[in-house]
Amino acid sequence: MKKIRVALKDRSYNIHIGAGIMRQCGHIAARLAVGTDAYVITNRRIQAKYGRTLCASLKAAGISSTVRLIPDTEKSKSFATAAAVLNDLARFDRNRHVFIVALGGGVVGDLAGFIAAVYKRGIPYIQVPTTLLAQIDSSIGGKTAIDLPAGKNLVGAFHQPRAVITDVSALASLGKRQLCQGMAEAIKYGLIRDKRLFLYIEKNIAGLLAKDRRALSFVIARCSSIKADIVSRDEREEKSLRTILNFGHTIGHAIESASGYNRYGHGEAVALGMLVASDISRQMKMITAHDQERIIRLIKAAGLPVRLKGVPFRKIISMHYRDKKFKAGRNRFVLLDGIGRARVVENISLFIIRSTLAKSSGPAIC
Amino acid sequence: MKKIRVALKDRSYNIHIGAGIMRQCGHIAARLAVGTDAYVITNRRIQAKYGRTLCASLKAAGISSTVRLIPDTEKSKSFATAAAVLNDLARFDRNRHVFIVALGGGVVGDLAGFIAAVYKRGIPYIQVPTTLLAQIDSSIGGKTAIDLPAGKNLVGAFHQPRAVITDVSALASLGKRQLCQGMAEAIKYGLIRDKRLFLYIEKNIAGLLAKDRRALSFVIARCSSIKADIVSRDEREEKSLRTILNFGHTIGHAIESASGYNRYGHGEAVALGMLVASDISRQMKMITAHDQERIIRLIKAAGLPVRLKGVPFRKIISMHYRDKKFKAGRNRFVLLDGIGRARVVENISLFIIRSTLAKSSGPAIC
Repeated sequence: MKKIRVALKDRSYNIHIGAGIMRQCGHIAARLAVGTDAYVITNRRIQAKYGRTLCASLKAAGISSTVRLIPDTEKSKSFATAAAVLNDLARFDRNRHVFIVALGGGVVGDLAGFIAAVYKRGIPYIQVPTTLLAQIDSSIGGKTAIDLPAGKNLVGAFHQPRAVITDVSALASLGKRQLCQGMAEAIKYGLIRDKRLFLYIEKNIAGLLAKDRRALSFVIARCSSIKADIVSRDEREEKSLRTILNFGHTIGHAIESASGYNRYGHGEAVALGMLVASDISRQMKMITAHDQERIIRLIKAAGLPVRLKGVPFRKIISMHYRDKKFKAGRNRFVLLDGIGRARVVENISLFIIRSTLAKSSGPAIC
Repeated sequence: MKKIRVALKDRSYNIHIGAGIMRQCGHIAARLAVGTDAYVITNRRIQAKYGRTLCASLKAAGISSTVRLIPDTEKSKSFATAAAVLNDLARFDRNRHVFIVALGGGVVGDLAGFIAAVYKRGIPYIQVPTTLLAQIDSSIGGKTAIDLPAGKNLVGAFHQPRAVITDVSALASLGKRQLCQGMAEAIKYGLIRDKRLFLYIEKNIAGLLAKDRRALSFVIARCSSIKADIVSRDEREEKSLRTILNFGHTIGHAIESASGYNRYGHGEAVALGMLVASDISRQMKMITAHDQERIIRLIKAAGLPVRLKGVPFRKIISMHYRDKKFKAGRNRFVLLDGIGRARVVENISLFIIRSTLAKSSGPAIC
C-alpha cells in the first residue's frame, strides 16, 4: 500500500493506494474517527460490485451504514438529486454521528462531496474512487460540484475529503471507453508537470490499456502525487498554480457543453481540448511541431479522439466565453511550455482560437 | 459612521454602521473591488423602499446592477428558490465580474449568502441588512443557509461577506413585531457576554421600542462588536465559543419547528428559548431567582412572549433531539453563569427539560 499526503494543515489527509484496499475502508474511517454511521452514495452498478465489500469492512470496524443509490449519469449532478439526497440524509441522520462515503466515479464523487460540503455546513466524507479518472483526478483536492442548465460545475464548494481510498483492482471491471478517458487526464499530468511520466505513458500505453496492474499502479501513484502537491500549494486556485490542472479543460468544457454532454465524455473532450491547447502552444512557439506530433500520437494511441466531429466550432467558442474561469472579458488558457511544463496565458486572440478549432474540426489536425 | 472589524486574516471585513449609510454602498463596493456587476437579491417590499437608493449608489461608483426579487417568507430559503436564483444568476453572469448584494432581513441574507457561497465555488457578497435582527446577528459571521423539510438551516456553508453595511435609518420602516424580535437577540448578547448592555437595554427599553435612534445605534454597535469578536475568535464554531451565540436557540429552533414556523417568529421563539434556558440555569443554581425574574421582566417589556402557547411540549422535545448541534445522542445547552456570562453544558437531564417546558407552557413562568 502506498500513502500520499495532501498537506493542508488541519485539512490534511492521505490518499491510500493499493489493490484490494477497499477492504480497509472501515479501519481507515475508524482510525480517523469520522463518525459512527456511514451514508454511502453510489450507483446501482458499483453497488452491485463493491457495496458488500465496503459495508462489511465498515461493519467490522463498528460503523453502521446505509446506501443511497443515484442514477449513473451526469444528470445526477443536479439540484433535484442533491435536494432529494439531502432530504434522505437528514431523515437518516437522527441523533447519529454521520459521515459520507463517495463510492464511484466522478459524478458520484462530485455530488457526494457537495452534499458533504453543505449538509450542516460541512460533515466529513471519504472518497472511494472506482474509475481511473476519479482515482487520479476528481477524488483528490476537494473540488465538489453540481451542474446548472447554464453550465457544468457552476455550483459547488471546496471541501476536502478526510481520506481517499484508491483500490486499483476496482479498475478490473472498468469499461474500455472509461479507461481511455482516465488516460486523457494521466497524459495531462505528464504534459503539464512531469515529462518522465509522459515518456512512461508513451512507452507503456499498450500495457496500460490492457490494464497491466503494475503500470496502472505506477501511473495512478504518480498522478496522485502531482495532484496532491499542486493542491497542497494552491488549495483554492488562488495562485494560478492549480489552474494548470485545467490544461485542455477550457475548450474541453466548451466542447462538452456545446455538444449537450452526450457526444463526448469528459476525458474525450479534454483530449480534444489538449490538442487545441497544444496547437495554440505550437503557434505561439512554446512547443515544437515535433512535440505537438508526439502529443497527437499518444492521444490517438490512448484510444481518444483526435478530431472534433458534429459540434460546430462557433458554438464551442460561444460556450467557451461562459467559462467560470473568465474574468471581466479576458480569456485564459493553460498552454504548454515544452512537454512537462505549463503556463497560464491570458487574452489569446480569437483569431488563433478560431483557426485552431476550424482545423481540429476538419481532417487536418493529425 | 462607525466601523467594526471582523478579524479573520484574508477573510477580514468591516461592519459599517450609520444612518443613511446605504448611499455609500457603491463607494464601499468599489473600494473593495468586489466586482463590476452587482446581483442584488431582495424582496418586493424592501426593493420598493431602498432599491433605488442602493442601485443609484452602485451606479455612481461605476457598478452595474440587476435586482432579483424573492418572496418575503421563510419558504424562500428552499432548494427550489436557490436553484431558480442560481440559474438566473448564471444567465446574468455572462462574461461579467459579478458579486452579490443581500438587501433585506435574515431570510434574504441567509439565502443570498448561500448562493454567493456555492456559485462558482464562492463569489464575493455584501450584506445590507434592513431588520434589527439581521443587523445585529445574521448578517455578521458568514453563516449562510437554506432549509430542508427535515429542519431549518440544515444546508449551508460558512462564507464571509466582504462587508456589512448597516443603515440604522432602515429601521424607521420596520414593523413593531420585527423590532421586538430583533430585541430578543440584543437581550441575548447582554445575557451571554455583556452585563452593561443588559442594563442599558433594561433602562432604555421604552426608547428602543420607540426607535430612539441614539439608543438603537448604541445597541446595534455594541451587539455587532460582540458578534465580531466572537466570530473572529471562533469562525467555524470549533472552540465552543461561537456556540454561546446559540443561547435560547436550542429550544427556540425546536419551538419554531414544532409549531410549523408560523406561530412564532424567530426572535419570539428565541425569547421563549432564553426563558427555558434561564430557568434551567436557575435550577442548576447558575443564576439566582432574582436574575431570572429580571430576565423575564425585560423580555416581557420588549414585547416578546413569555408563555408558550399552542405547541405541545412533547413535540418540542422530539424536534429538539433533531437539532444539528447534537452529537451522538448528547444534548448541549448554552446556560447562563450569572447575567453577562454563558457556558455550554452537555447532557442536561430530560427530566429538567421536560419540567421546565411544562412550566413554560402553563401560566406559571412569569
